[in-house]
Amino acid sequence: MSKLTHFDNDGRVNMVDVGDKTVTERIALARGEVHMSDEAHTHLKAGKNRKGDVLTIAEIAGIMGAKKTSDLIPLCHPLPLTSVKVELSITDKGVAVTARAKTKGQTGVEMEALTAVSVACLTVYDMLKAVDKGMVITGIELLEKSGGKSGLYRK
Amino acid sequence: MSKLTHFDNDGRVNMVDVGDKTVTERIALARGEVHMSDEAHTHLKAGKNRKGDVLTIAEIAGIMGAKKTSDLIPLCHPLPLTSVKVELSITDKGVAVTARAKTKGQTGVEMEALTAVSVACLTVYDMLKAVDKGMVITGIELLEKSGGKSGLYRK
Amino acid sequence: MSKLTHFDNDGRVNMVDVGDKTVTERIALARGEVHMSDEAHTHLKAGKNRKGDVLTIAEIAGIMGAKKTSDLIPLCHPLPLTSVKVELSITDKGVAVTARAKTKGQTGVEMEALTAVSVACLTVYDMLKAVDKGMVITGIELLEKSGGKSGLYRK
Amino acid sequence: MSKLTHFDNDGRVNMVDVGDKTVTERIALARGEVHMSDEAHTHLKAGKNRKGDVLTIAEIAGIMGAKKTSDLIPLCHPLPLTSVKVELSITDKGVAVTARAKTKGQTGVEMEALTAVSVACLTVYDMLKAVDKGMVITGIELLEKSGGKSGLYRK
Amino acid sequence: MSKLTHFDNDGRVNMVDVGDKTVTERIALARGEVHMSDEAHTHLKAGKNRKGDVLTIAEIAGIMGAKKTSDLIPLCHPLPLTSVKVELSITDKGVAVTARAKTKGQTGVEMEALTAVSVACLTVYDMLKAVDKGMVITGIELLEKSGGKSGLYRK
Amino acid sequence: MSKLTHFDNDGRVNMVDVGDKTVTERIALARGEVHMSDEAHTHLKAGKNRKGDVLTIAEIAGIMGAKKTSDLIPLCHPLPLTSVKVELSITDKGVAVTARAKTKGQTGVEMEALTAVSVACLTVYDMLKAVDKGMVITGIELLEKSGGKSGLYRK
Repeated sequence: MSKLTHFDNDGRVNMVDVGDKTVTERIALARGEVHMSDEAHTHLKAGKNRKGDVLTIAEIAGIMGAKKTSDLIPLCHPLPLTSVKVELSITDKGVAVTARAKTKGQTGVEMEALTAVSVACLTVYDMLKAVDKGMVITGIELLEKSGGKSGLYRK
Repeated sequence: MSKLTHFDNDGRVNMVDVGDKTVTERIALARGEVHMSDEAHTHLKAGKNRKGDVLTIAEIAGIMGAKKTSDLIPLCHPLPLTSVKVELSITDKGVAVTARAKTKGQTGVEMEALTAVSVACLTVYDMLKAVDKGMVITGIELLEKSGGKSGLYRK
Repeated sequence: MSKLTHFDNDGRVNMVDVGDKTVTERIALARGEVHMSDEAHTHLKAGKNRKGDVLTIAEIAGIMGAKKTSDLIPLCHPLPLTSVKVELSITDKGVAVTARAKTKGQTGVEMEALTAVSVACLTVYDMLKAVDKGMVITGIELLEKSGGKSGLYRK
Repeated sequence: MSKLTHFDNDGRVNMVDVGDKTVTERIALARGEVHMSDEAHTHLKAGKNRKGDVLTIAEIAGIMGAKKTSDLIPLCHPLPLTSVKVELSITDKGVAVTARAKTKGQTGVEMEALTAVSVACLTVYDMLKAVDKGMVITGIELLEKSGGKSGLYRK
Repeated sequence: MSKLTHFDNDGRVNMVDVGDKTVTERIALARGEVHMSDEAHTHLKAGKNRKGDVLTIAEIAGIMGAKKTSDLIPLCHPLPLTSVKVELSITDKGVAVTARAKTKGQTGVEMEALTAVSVACLTVYDMLKAVDKGMVITGIELLEKSGGKSGLYRK
Repeated sequence: MSKLTHFDNDGRVNMVDVGDKTVTERIALARGEVHMSDEAHTHLKAGKNRKGDVLTIAEIAGIMGAKKTSDLIPLCHPLPLTSVKVELSITDKGVAVTARAKTKGQTGVEMEALTAVSVACLTVYDMLKAVDKGMVITGIELLEKSGGKSGLYRK
């Protein structure tokens, strides 16, 4: 059975030693969605044409969230991100989010991309919850990952 | 059309003024899930009987994440949580997460409960990603909310 | 000579004891400005009609900055803000910023309002620095403060 | 056997529910020490008469550290401290630290006082480590605690 | 018209991709001032000869603030600073602040230097506000920047 | 007399310039202890065989604490840790903690190792304080340090 890298032979957790990994460019792309009621959807579309709209604020929150990943996820390595891009777009059911994170380092940035997506989705929820408490955050997953020993992953 | 509270009449964002709301006990309950491959599922179950297992670490991360909610969500009010409980349990498809947050204050704690769930799910992903990059975080939603003017909400 | 409250009789610093102060509504209003070149000014005005403009992002940054005040200013008390509003508007010379912070507590929120203004100004600088490194952040001051024993202050 | 409050009946951790506790003034006093070589001791004493000395910086770090307690200790409640005072004094063996934290709330501040002491000691170590890597941080303990149901504790 | 790097062609914000920039030593020098009343000025000068004076505490706060830059400014890259120096000196009108930040990396540190100055100025305000609420933080600007493709900038 | 590196010739503090140091692998190992009553000791041993035990939670807290070192210690450099491992074991008197931190960088990680130990000890205190307020955190010291110009240090 393949090994969970965060545990040593005694079952003790640790922040995996990446000191011997190669420094390469590492990119990760993740996605997620927020499904919502028609009323919330209408509000969202109305805002799109205005200053300070929900989507822009959630994109900013996603970018800032990516920078907090190692603070939030206990065994994540702190790393200097070289780029983060979060894009929200309106879909039939609500909002689709994608986040792309990048670094030049010894470990991957999939958690940064997934965290950016999660925080952007939570921010959408926060900003529309006055009109719809029933929204659902769903389908958060890694789409692609490149760099490092394991090479390209594509879902 | 009902109003988005985070925007004023000019469409400018703000942290809503809750200064005139009543101080009451406010509780929120949220849930979410991580779906995973059989291999990841097997690892998870193996860990359950060991020290330092994935579920415990994700519960801790969820509790600590709840305390960072106002740092992550741009327009959330900082508030002194009086209790947070995060429970992970193994399901057929992977892991189910529930989080309950509580405060005695002027604004609700649904974002704290939802953030706790999100961070716990992300932590599960991080700890099992060595065996399954294809996991999906899904179905994050508010189940219940009480306290304050709007009263009880139950999905 | 009036006393600096952050020092005790030995000249030792401390976070002033506010435990005996009355819990009242406390409001503070601060302002500041960023002066810039014509080129930066033109860019700023162009953005105003677009999604994701500089002003909105700086307003968000200001609000989030207010929540970090006690993290940044060594002797500031942590306190639960009940409202923060940051407004940026374009002037002849660049941007004018005002921030209004509010709490119901035992100590004032002037540092929160001033921090919100400072962070919003720094964000404007960051977003326009590609076209103008010579911008100047200036005139950051407290305009008004109410609540607590010292009553209303107005500049 | 008395119960560990951070665990429920299933052995699951949680941030204890303090929502039903009385709001009272809660004070905690903690202490600790840093033992050091003669060389480090000499440096420390020399600095005492200068601007920017080690002791002042460690006092500031201790106060700021107290404000981060709920960020550091997984199950600590976030709470609005009304006062923190950290005092370092030179002893025969090195430095003695005391910290006093205070709040008006539903839970005690012993972790805040102990964290302030720890961070102040670590800062002393950091600032003197160029002359003595062998320093020992020792004797960190709670001296006194008052407020709340359990009443006065004195070691 | 030159391009605002934080926006892509659709006007969407992003943390600029610096992954292809050269790793060089990057230095930035910024300045700012706090103007104050005679009474505050007198207090400040009195403190200069004492332990724990306002200037030292503001220097420490400025250094710590520089380390939080990427947390405060939404689109700033997190980066490992190799040096920060903040100097406050008493002037006729109050206090002058300079901050010099340095890194070996792929992006400049002007925001770190400007943030250090801003936080130091805010700390001066906080520590003297008991004697003068009318202080003004002013003239915050970048003096010099070196390293990277754009070469030396000097105001 | 050897020089305190955090002070310049004027006695002014600064974050030491490490920009000219070599990038090497740097490792630090630190230790500490928590001494406790028989009752607390019994609780601790009982928990060892259960899910969510005190030791695991303190190990997680120690790892997360290591990542906050530059936030806590005023003049510490922020740096990308490549590994952190915290181990708690039960002794006759209570708990022994060791922490090993690692980076590939221009400055050492002894403060990260010491901070990890301190936060783990504080977490043990927090989780057992309901049965023993008299616990003492003691003997926190650097055991070993390698990498960089000063070479190997071993206590």
